[in-house]
Amino acid sequence: MRVKAAVLTACNQPLEIRHYPEPPQLAPGEALARVLMAGICGTDVHLWKGELPIPLPLIMGHESVGRLEKLGAGLQLDWRGQSLQVGDRVTWASSIVCGECYYCRAKRQPTRCLQRKAYGISYRADDAPHLRGGYAEKILLRAGSSIFKLPETLPTASVVGAGCALTTAIHGLERCPVSWGDVVIVQGAGPVGLAALAVARQSGAGKIIVVGGPAHRLERARQFGADETLNIADEPDAGARQKWLLEAAGGYGADVVVECVGHPAAVNEGIELCRDGGKFLVLGQYANAGNIEFNPHTITRKQLEVRGSWGFEPRHVDAALRMLSLGGWAELFASQVTHRFTLDQANEALATVKEWRCGKAVLEP
Amino acid sequence: MRVKAAVLTACNQPLEIRHYPEPPQLAPGEALARVLMAGICGTDVHLWKGELPIPLPLIMGHESVGRLEKLGAGLQLDWRGQSLQVGDRVTWASSIVCGECYYCRAKRQPTRCLQRKAYGISYRADDAPHLRGGYAEKILLRAGSSIFKLPETLPTASVVGAGCALTTAIHGLERCPVSWGDVVIVQGAGPVGLAALAVARQSGAGKIIVVGGPAHRLERARQFGADETLNIADEPDAGARQKWLLEAAGGYGADVVVECVGHPAAVNEGIELCRDGGKFLVLGQYANAGNIEFNPHTITRKQLEVRGSWGFEPRHVDAALRMLSLGGWAELFASQVTHRFTLDQANEALATVKEWRCGKAVLEP
Amino acid sequence: MRVKAAVLTACNQPLEIRHYPEPPQLAPGEALARVLMAGICGTDVHLWKGELPIPLPLIMGHESVGRLEKLGAGLQLDWRGQSLQVGDRVTWASSIVCGECYYCRAKRQPTRCLQRKAYGISYRADDAPHLRGGYAEKILLRAGSSIFKLPETLPTASVVGAGCALTTAIHGLERCPVSWGDVVIVQGAGPVGLAALAVARQSGAGKIIVVGGPAHRLERARQFGADETLNIADEPDAGARQKWLLEAAGGYGADVVVECVGHPAAVNEGIELCRDGGKFLVLGQYANAGNIEFNPHTITRKQLEVRGSWGFEPRHVDAALRMLSLGGWAELFASQVTHRFTLDQANEALATVKEWRCGKAVLEP
Amino acid sequence: MRVKAAVLTACNQPLEIRHYPEPPQLAPGEALARVLMAGICGTDVHLWKGELPIPLPLIMGHESVGRLEKLGAGLQLDWRGQSLQVGDRVTWASSIVCGECYYCRAKRQPTRCLQRKAYGISYRADDAPHLRGGYAEKILLRAGSSIFKLPETLPTASVVGAGCALTTAIHGLERCPVSWGDVVIVQGAGPVGLAALAVARQSGAGKIIVVGGPAHRLERARQFGADETLNIADEPDAGARQKWLLEAAGGYGADVVVECVGHPAAVNEGIELCRDGGKFLVLGQYANAGNIEFNPHTITRKQLEVRGSWGFEPRHVDAALRMLSLGGWAELFASQVTHRFTLDQANEALATVKEWRCGKAVLEP
Repeated sequence: MRVKAAVLTACNQPLEIRHYPEPPQLAPGEALARVLMAGICGTDVHLWKGELPIPLPLIMGHESVGRLEKLGAGLQLDWRGQSLQVGDRVTWASSIVCGECYYCRAKRQPTRCLQRKAYGISYRADDAPHLRGGYAEKILLRAGSSIFKLPETLPTASVVGAGCALTTAIHGLERCPVSWGDVVIVQGAGPVGLAALAVARQSGAGKIIVVGGPAHRLERARQFGADETLNIADEPDAGARQKWLLEAAGGYGADVVVECVGHPAAVNEGIELCRDGGKFLVLGQYANAGNIEFNPHTITRKQLEVRGSWGFEPRHVDAALRMLSLGGWAELFASQVTHRFTLDQANEALATVKEWRCGKAVLEP
Repeated sequence: MRVKAAVLTACNQPLEIRHYPEPPQLAPGEALARVLMAGICGTDVHLWKGELPIPLPLIMGHESVGRLEKLGAGLQLDWRGQSLQVGDRVTWASSIVCGECYYCRAKRQPTRCLQRKAYGISYRADDAPHLRGGYAEKILLRAGSSIFKLPETLPTASVVGAGCALTTAIHGLERCPVSWGDVVIVQGAGPVGLAALAVARQSGAGKIIVVGGPAHRLERARQFGADETLNIADEPDAGARQKWLLEAAGGYGADVVVECVGHPAAVNEGIELCRDGGKFLVLGQYANAGNIEFNPHTITRKQLEVRGSWGFEPRHVDAALRMLSLGGWAELFASQVTHRFTLDQANEALATVKEWRCGKAVLEP
Repeated sequence: MRVKAAVLTACNQPLEIRHYPEPPQLAPGEALARVLMAGICGTDVHLWKGELPIPLPLIMGHESVGRLEKLGAGLQLDWRGQSLQVGDRVTWASSIVCGECYYCRAKRQPTRCLQRKAYGISYRADDAPHLRGGYAEKILLRAGSSIFKLPETLPTASVVGAGCALTTAIHGLERCPVSWGDVVIVQGAGPVGLAALAVARQSGAGKIIVVGGPAHRLERARQFGADETLNIADEPDAGARQKWLLEAAGGYGADVVVECVGHPAAVNEGIELCRDGGKFLVLGQYANAGNIEFNPHTITRKQLEVRGSWGFEPRHVDAALRMLSLGGWAELFASQVTHRFTLDQANEALATVKEWRCGKAVLEP
Repeated sequence: MRVKAAVLTACNQPLEIRHYPEPPQLAPGEALARVLMAGICGTDVHLWKGELPIPLPLIMGHESVGRLEKLGAGLQLDWRGQSLQVGDRVTWASSIVCGECYYCRAKRQPTRCLQRKAYGISYRADDAPHLRGGYAEKILLRAGSSIFKLPETLPTASVVGAGCALTTAIHGLERCPVSWGDVVIVQGAGPVGLAALAVARQSGAGKIIVVGGPAHRLERARQFGADETLNIADEPDAGARQKWLLEAAGGYGADVVVECVGHPAAVNEGIELCRDGGKFLVLGQYANAGNIEFNPHTITRKQLEVRGSWGFEPRHVDAALRMLSLGGWAELFASQVTHRFTLDQANEALATVKEWRCGKAVLEP
């Protein structure tokens, strides 16, 4: 049995279709899943460009839903303690941590585990057992993976439409919480910005303002519950933009500003949008996009809290699935999936994401 | 009756001795105090250089101890509810806030009060009633000032030796607490650095490392309880310094790093000294000392918390006095007062601070 | 000019109509308001029964909306800094604190101010200026009162319908926050229970279960967003009730349980409804309703957090008004006002509350 | 090879000396240790009396230090990542949790793990491999145990003298932290009380008052840093005791009160010793010692936080060892070990603890 995959063999080059052997039998605790849908994440574009350290060749795809085909010995329960059967529709946390290092144990920061490995990012496709990413017909999940059985009522597109953006936003806003009634500015209207908006909305924010673009994304932001949006193309002058946003935030600035842009320049802009004593969450600087000119006096004078958040833990996947069970979110996130492709169209799918032409593009292998 | 004062009439120029009329009678709630000792704060050097916006001419001096000479009608109790009498030795919070603005009320951030005014900083000496700073024989405290009667056992030099550095550090470490057992790095060994070290020590830090200079200050840091010190002059190479400090902090970095330097470059250096998931307190950037090249990706990747803290509230003066009543601190902070001057020697006193020649220089008007 | 009031002259006796002189002129900072609507709070029933220490005779009424008739010198701005004019419709915090005592200053617990006084509770009606409660045509607000100008779009009935229940719930859930997704059980479906439910809903609770009665109140709870309700009359057996509620909460118990009943017996029942490591907010034990048999081992074994909350601060009134500006709450709380009475019908109004016949009964003097 | 153990075969009966076979070979991850010292914990007396559910026969002993004799395959590192060798002196966390249940995963409350098992408490001695408690010459540690290699400089008696009291206090005060400067009252001067006092001292408490007895324990409390002590025998009247303690705490009560007594009556007494808005930690109600008459109105009126804490996690053992490395604690806790016994004297050792005749009694098998 051969399993088809779209493989990144060299940065900035088209993905290639390759075939890998299906593992003849599973080790204890492993699971083999048929991939039903794999999201094309913005991070995948960064990987493709070579902006993060990865092994090559690589089967990308770290936000996927699959159907269980085989279960290794002893694998009986999902992360929540529900029984697992062949045929179950599942998703899984993209990372596995060691549970033993300084960060896992003493400091309880497992997202900074010294041995953390992520499906679709950390495994070389040429090394057996090869199938460690979502851009493939099948994926082999390691023993110790955090698997979540999906309720029948939850569409596959909701889970992949939420993707790692939602779990990342949930972790970020856990580290930098929005209290009910807070005025929140979200910088950026891509998947992470929408997810941060959704979590802020669910947290009872009093007013949420989204600044970003392009127009079709801001339209979606309003559907997700943004009270006001500012299209950066309509107000290209940074000073005028700041004035408009501060006014929209009540004059002094927002209680919480969430940066979901990725351009480092957004950080200076965002810090000025915080009220004194406010909070600023740096959520979008996942890739190293370079330096800014920064005045640290601002942190002192404005008496700010600036927080960073890296990735997420399995319990944030649990939280994301719980959020998708709350009123309306499943539909909204499913509607994010605007473009569907086959494995053979993987390069077209990547281009759609790269050029910001979609809500969310997915592969259906 | 004429009251003598050392007055800043123009930036970067010698202070001038001037005389102002003593107010003939006090308004309700006011207090007139004979200044016993006034600290020369590093901020005074910044004021003198014109690095912060101030009115001129100005009687500087925002960290003082005095003896009450007159009490306005209705002023009967100090901040703690103790009765006040003429002849009492007192200190006072340097700032008065409005209690009514957005920051005072809705956001409970009184240090960012929109109408905050500080003795020794905000009052023009040529405007009646003139006597609003500590570099003078007497000071007239406004109604609503936060006055603290000093216990007899607490030396004047302890209070001024602690000065606004201790209240600033107490506020800063309230916003960015050290838990018992934490590994702490303090950048800077000036008054704020020593005060941060003292508060971290009182908070039960497991290990405190101070990096700074010159040698006489690091010697003092060890007396204040630093476990290890690094003289920046002994290790001028930033990379080697970082390596040494990370190792001293256990390999991964400190749980809490407190920046008390003032040079913006210290911020980048300090952030790299935090372990992942650690906390960084920007305490030393009180004056605007300019920009740095900064990579915001670091905040995300290291999953940091970066906090700023501005000035302090009256309750932090209360806390500072309580701390001075705990084992050893009164003596240690009193020993900080290494240089004493008369009002006529105010320029020499300022120069001593400017050139880092002292622990703490004070005026005894 | 005589001002009519319904006055409590002796406990457990009918209120009497009395007339007091309107103050001929106002002292600086005072305000005279025509009472438009005054809520009959459950606490008023406790006062009437003599269950809390009060001076007699007393004009009750601590949750009111009025229209400004006269402003004392210097009173120009409301708590939020908006300009105040004769004719403005306003509400006000029921309490004034000293701002100077141990609890106000050092411990920042102003609700426990040693000199706290509340309109409708703490002022003897026979002492000038008499008009210190809402059960009267007019009320004279002291200098230092926290007055809030109401936006034109916010109905008077919304503010009184929310009453002190909402501000109390906001303070309580500030001390014992609900995070988005939490499973919450609210014990009690009276005004405080509904308000706690509303704040939990606004905080993004994942599931809210209300246990109480009678049926018309639970119907209202469902309108306010309760996911499930249990009528205590339908399940009088405590064991069966607990079983049902634990199951509804997912098996292990709720993340947060909010007691809004007032019967001390509810406390033992509520604690058993918390999951291990959960939080229990004692919000309903405002009056001293006596002892229970209690096993403190439960606190240790279940690793609980139990919190109390007393009254509220002016900033919680600000928060309540902000909440009423968010989607739907103004209408829902206005619909709470089910019974309206004149001053002359004050005894009938009290009886309506005493017998749980209403959502909220109000006086329109 | 036969291993000697002192075994609880029936409650309230003398322990019996029995012999069990030494396991011929170890499974992967297991460790066999020679017991150097095993503490007799107050909980052991409760177990002996049958006050907690346990299997019989039982080898008690959950706070021990041993020397590694054999290591199972794959066991190479201790909890902190240090290499383990035969001959190393080690201690270990008494409990193992499943890591998979609702409390371990979703709620991160592993001390409430649904499958938690503790050495010296949960394992039937007649079931192979028998050796699961410290009252024996050897103990067999399960794979997955949290083992800590001890630094050479740390005496065995320090670790056992601190025992589970210190880890319990560290967990408790993590859930209910003491801030520097806080006024703290510790109820009880047994091992848990002393440990709570030590952690409060290390946290920088401003004043610590210990109430308890008998005199030799209060003498020890003063050595551990108590500022004041009250012998309950000297002031048997509860009212007078409360008056004295409130006064010692500054008049309004303590910021934090830690109950370490075990008698449920201490809870009512302790709650009254909290200032309004203060915190009360229920740490001593580990066994179910029955009910009290309790007035829940107190929680509301005093606006309290009451917290419970159950057992501890491996990271608290790590913290305890770190604390023992800080100035003076190792010596103080070693001095707690006042009585040493052989295995054959186990009944005499238990009696010493039961009758409060010792600091800490230990077995040296």
